[in-house]
Amino acid sequence: MLPAEIIKKKRNGQSLSNEEIQFFIRSYTDGSLPDYQMSALLMAIYFSGMNEAETLSLTKAMLNSGVVVDFSNLALHKVDKHSTGGVGDKTSLILGPIVAAAGVAVPMISGRGLGHTGGTLDKLESIPGFNTQISIDDFKSMIAKHGISFIGQTKEICPADKKIYALRDVTATVESLPLICASIMSKKLAEGIDSLVLDVKFGNGAFMKTAEKAEELARALMSIAQGYGKKVSALITNMNQPLGRFAGNALEVEECLSIMKNEGHPMDQDTRELSLKLSAEMLYLAGKAKTKADGYKLATEILESGKALAKFEELCKIQGGDLSRLPKPKHQVLIKSTEDGFVSTMETEKIGVIGIQIRAGRAQTTDLIEPTAGIQFHKKVGDKVSAGETLFTLFGADEVLLKAAAPHLEKTMTLSKSSPSKPQLVWKEL
Amino acid sequence: MLPAEIIKKKRNGQSLSNEEIQFFIRSYTDGSLPDYQMSALLMAIYFSGMNEAETLSLTKAMLNSGVVVDFSNLALHKVDKHSTGGVGDKTSLILGPIVAAAGVAVPMISGRGLGHTGGTLDKLESIPGFNTQISIDDFKSMIAKHGISFIGQTKEICPADKKIYALRDVTATVESLPLICASIMSKKLAEGIDSLVLDVKFGNGAFMKTAEKAEELARALMSIAQGYGKKVSALITNMNQPLGRFAGNALEVEECLSIMKNEGHPMDQDTRELSLKLSAEMLYLAGKAKTKADGYKLATEILESGKALAKFEELCKIQGGDLSRLPKPKHQVLIKSTEDGFVSTMETEKIGVIGIQIRAGRAQTTDLIEPTAGIQFHKKVGDKVSAGETLFTLFGADEVLLKAAAPHLEKTMTLSKSSPSKPQLVWKEL
Repeated sequence: MLPAEIIKKKRNGQSLSNEEIQFFIRSYTDGSLPDYQMSALLMAIYFSGMNEAETLSLTKAMLNSGVVVDFSNLALHKVDKHSTGGVGDKTSLILGPIVAAAGVAVPMISGRGLGHTGGTLDKLESIPGFNTQISIDDFKSMIAKHGISFIGQTKEICPADKKIYALRDVTATVESLPLICASIMSKKLAEGIDSLVLDVKFGNGAFMKTAEKAEELARALMSIAQGYGKKVSALITNMNQPLGRFAGNALEVEECLSIMKNEGHPMDQDTRELSLKLSAEMLYLAGKAKTKADGYKLATEILESGKALAKFEELCKIQGGDLSRLPKPKHQVLIKSTEDGFVSTMETEKIGVIGIQIRAGRAQTTDLIEPTAGIQFHKKVGDKVSAGETLFTLFGADEVLLKAAAPHLEKTMTLSKSSPSKPQLVWKEL
Repeated sequence: MLPAEIIKKKRNGQSLSNEEIQFFIRSYTDGSLPDYQMSALLMAIYFSGMNEAETLSLTKAMLNSGVVVDFSNLALHKVDKHSTGGVGDKTSLILGPIVAAAGVAVPMISGRGLGHTGGTLDKLESIPGFNTQISIDDFKSMIAKHGISFIGQTKEICPADKKIYALRDVTATVESLPLICASIMSKKLAEGIDSLVLDVKFGNGAFMKTAEKAEELARALMSIAQGYGKKVSALITNMNQPLGRFAGNALEVEECLSIMKNEGHPMDQDTRELSLKLSAEMLYLAGKAKTKADGYKLATEILESGKALAKFEELCKIQGGDLSRLPKPKHQVLIKSTEDGFVSTMETEKIGVIGIQIRAGRAQTTDLIEPTAGIQFHKKVGDKVSAGETLFTLFGADEVLLKAAAPHLEKTMTLSKSSPSKPQLVWKEL
């Protein structure tokens, strides 16, 4: 098989065979096929696309470049959730404990934040001592004993994806549906799960700008999971504003603790609601509830009973995290409204980018994060605002950075005279 | 400037600025920009195209990666011809001497054959001793003294093109109009010419399959030449059958000598006619004729007077070639017709590929050519054929290769019962 002929075929809009895809990915992973041929193929895929069978082959090739966690000795049903990413998206820290507390295994292999979206690992690592660099064997033991563990991608998991993702990042080939699908699903399938719930986000803070595009991505991801015989469902959810009260790593842990302690903070309600909805899907797929409504009821009971909090504390303990030492921000800068009105829009992606500027996130993989840096949202879309009321609080360790970011953050919110409708959190269930 | 952002811009169908193109080509040529980003950009250009200004910038960037031959001390007008390539296309060996004999400088920097099309350098090198690896300084002296010299691309000429062409070859990005235009024109402009005649071929033996596509390429090439203030014209010519009596290096030299000796072989007439037509364009652009018709008359006079032959012999002498030792093929295999009829089609590209199989051409740049190998055409489209008459003769040093190729060659010609019209050699003059 000639690599240039395979590239040409895809360039000309033809479908690649399973053998051609396996050959290309295998040769690239073992180093015998050079970066320049892979990047040419990636760009050809960007333009020509891939059909369902090709996307499944690509996922398979990437999955088979590494190991699949072997849970064959574990009787528990194993379920995970994947979110396509957003600002303030912290539901994993709540739904993981809820579902694990119900006696279902939740083997989560998570990523770090890059660009304007946050990452679960960064949030957990803001808890002093919390270790996510755990071997596959220890991960398996934790899942068997405690039903839950959160780790980072290890070198055994999908090395092809790791290599290809780094190349996509520098060759403008990230935004391709089949490449996104294969990258996400190869890593999720490597977890050895039985079922998967997808949280596919749309809106001005999401990768997919419209609900229809998000549904397209969700259906493509579901099709791969089904091709592997997994149970799968998806919620198409709104990211036209940040989720919850905080964006920023230690701040988001605070919000999750507040929810699991049932403190009832009004600005936490969307985070709580989405965590319960996703937990309901997971419990239903895992066979712990006959209907999704029953799943929602069960999830709510576990959350309200304190069992979710207990499971989260157990998780922190086994992974070395000390919640009592969760760091607090040294500085804060308030942004107040200069006028009366109603919040009509929030530029969510820009808010995420400001998060990077104050070091709550990273622009490049090598950037260091300040765990206490972040933004508090005092008002959301549809809320009434009076002049002088606080809209945002900026938190962090470097006051100069916070002050510099404040005027930019202020501009991300638009007020209107009339009251706009509040955005619907879940647009569709698939 | 971030390379990934430039790739993304082109991927999204936007135009690149002159600065962005210069930066990309300069960084690639000096080695600071990796192959994988260049191949991603090339594929994005394949899909998104480039407008006239971008193509001109790309040509300029490639031209400026090396030197432009400095003929400022030479009073003579300098003209060259470029053909987009075909089977049996040998006009350079005739028109070069004709135009130089008229007192015009013809500084030809030529290529080798690759794939099914032949290359001028390979034809000349079939003459024992003919040296095409000549320094730029010696090339300039020869042009000043003799008005003619044929050399290969040196390392000083368009190094960016050399590096990019090698990458295009292995990343399926050869077939892109702006990339083709920039590659051709950067090399031609580096010759330091005043004017250029293009022979853009169409048909089943050409890169462009239709006359309309060939015209599109011709106009794009002309636009670049004009952008550089060069005089330029183009003939759109038919490559639905091989040109002339022979395809194969030493055999094509024989054909050219026969034409320059005015032997009047009927199967040489199309080569002779096209050489005269292209010479006429060159003489007209060089100001040696008031009209193209006058140019044609002058070219014919030079050819018939023996002055073209004398100039060709002079060329061979200064570049070390010994025409008296032109090698003769050891073996020949005849292909005869088994039926009566008229030649209706010839599959020209396939004939060229059979040329590679008998080692008259090369599939890869490292392949060695057998100078005496080739094919004689006894019949062309429109000719009457009787059963038993010879259609082709295969020539070469390896009889086994020739016999193996014969049945394939036979299949490239289709006979019909009724007499088809003879193809028109020149479709359009631009």
